[in-house]
Amino acid sequence: MLELESLSVGQYGFINNVFSFGLAVMASSTLFVWLMKGSVAPAYRMAMVITGLVTAIAGYHYLQIMLSWQGAATINTGEVLVTGEGFNRAYRYVDWLLTVPLLLIELILVMKLSKSDTMSRSVKLGGAAALMIILGYPGEVSSEVGTRALFWILAMIPFLYIVREMVVGLKDSIARQPDEVKGLINAAAILLVVSWAFYPIVYLLPLVGITGGSAIVAVETGYTIADIVSKAVFAMLIFLIAVRKSAADERELVAEAAKQGEQKTPVKKVA
Amino acid sequence: MLELESLSVGQYGFINNVFSFGLAVMASSTLFVWLMKGSVAPAYRMAMVITGLVTAIAGYHYLQIMLSWQGAATINTGEVLVTGEGFNRAYRYVDWLLTVPLLLIELILVMKLSKSDTMSRSVKLGGAAALMIILGYPGEVSSEVGTRALFWILAMIPFLYIVREMVVGLKDSIARQPDEVKGLINAAAILLVVSWAFYPIVYLLPLVGITGGSAIVAVETGYTIADIVSKAVFAMLIFLIAVRKSAADERELVAEAAKQGEQKTPVKKVA
Repeated sequence: MLELESLSVGQYGFINNVFSFGLAVMASSTLFVWLMKGSVAPAYRMAMVITGLVTAIAGYHYLQIMLSWQGAATINTGEVLVTGEGFNRAYRYVDWLLTVPLLLIELILVMKLSKSDTMSRSVKLGGAAALMIILGYPGEVSSEVGTRALFWILAMIPFLYIVREMVVGLKDSIARQPDEVKGLINAAAILLVVSWAFYPIVYLLPLVGITGGSAIVAVETGYTIADIVSKAVFAMLIFLIAVRKSAADERELVAEAAKQGEQKTPVKKVA
Repeated sequence: MLELESLSVGQYGFINNVFSFGLAVMASSTLFVWLMKGSVAPAYRMAMVITGLVTAIAGYHYLQIMLSWQGAATINTGEVLVTGEGFNRAYRYVDWLLTVPLLLIELILVMKLSKSDTMSRSVKLGGAAALMIILGYPGEVSSEVGTRALFWILAMIPFLYIVREMVVGLKDSIARQPDEVKGLINAAAILLVVSWAFYPIVYLLPLVGITGGSAIVAVETGYTIADIVSKAVFAMLIFLIAVRKSAADERELVAEAAKQGEQKTPVKKVA
């Protein structure tokens, strides 16, 4: 279990503030994309709604994590005393089980692929993401090193599949995107892969004997930063992509209409 | 640490009411700008959304600050007794880390500069603002006079950069604004600089030996007033600017259409 008593009062308070910061960022990001939904074309509004859902779910879990943290210890005469309630780290897994598949679906939706492609990629990537989280959980709650290592390896299989799909599998689809969003979509895919790579590293820390107050601070701050990058910063990228694609689609529509207008004129003259 | 026990019961209750007032003002300001979002032109809606986000984030932190205040002491037979949980002053920093960069971005967005100018100013000013808050934090939580003084000086560097940008850097951009908003935008920039100048002064109070019950009342009331001026009063200015600029843009559009109409008429006559 977590040795909360190895924390100083300052460290205990700092982690509380980190959780509160996470909650505030996630809630702000949610409100931003939902309130700005009207400024993207209808085709991209489902991507906006799901982008906001991911951060809303994450915000809810940061509230739960913060309350669990506050209930797990009290401060008395300058010392952190555990209450025995325990700090519920599993909230992170409950969060990821919902948000990680949705994050991949966000990216697929904003690309506006064909209907069948959207469906098959959502099922494959979303399924792999859910499987990755489910396989990670038994190792996270186990205190045995062997169990932790085994489930780390098992969870890495769907993780590597997702990385491969992001880096190689999406290449053709990204190449067909309008020029002004190619760079952004690439950046979003890379942001996901890089920020997600942080989690399996943190997962291994207890295996290599990194424990104590500073380790708890590092793990909780690290997870929170990774969550903010992969969800809220990612949300801003998805929003920007949706805005630019809305503009590109409209330009294409106008060009198409102008072309049809030109074609009509000679036809009429001939008639 | 804060000597809460030097407060009278009346003072302890008064500060609680100040925090509750801050929460009510921030929440009202948020609801106002979001509900009025539809009455400004689409180009200014992102400024409205972010203006509301700033006060929403501040409202959330006033709730947290108030709950922390209530948990930090109890009242027993006419005396304030600390519980040992401590009053978490750091919530203000968590708030500022998010809201101070966003306040600058609000002002930039409502000016509707060119895309590249908007982006570069947001990054520079937002980054300087975040740096200022991060540099202030270690001094705020330290009980050593030297550390407090050192980080005050470090945080003043990005602060002075922001002041310079507000007063000198924005001059040309303000000069290009429509006449009816020039005064308001100038007022908004000055309001920011003046209300922000209050924070480094309060920060220094413990250094000059001002402590005790009255000092706590002065600091917490002062910070709250400064927050209300720089966020909620500022929000009303931003809203007014957006309304006037929407009207100015429409007038310009109508004038442009009339001009094109005039040009068309002679062409038709010739034909």
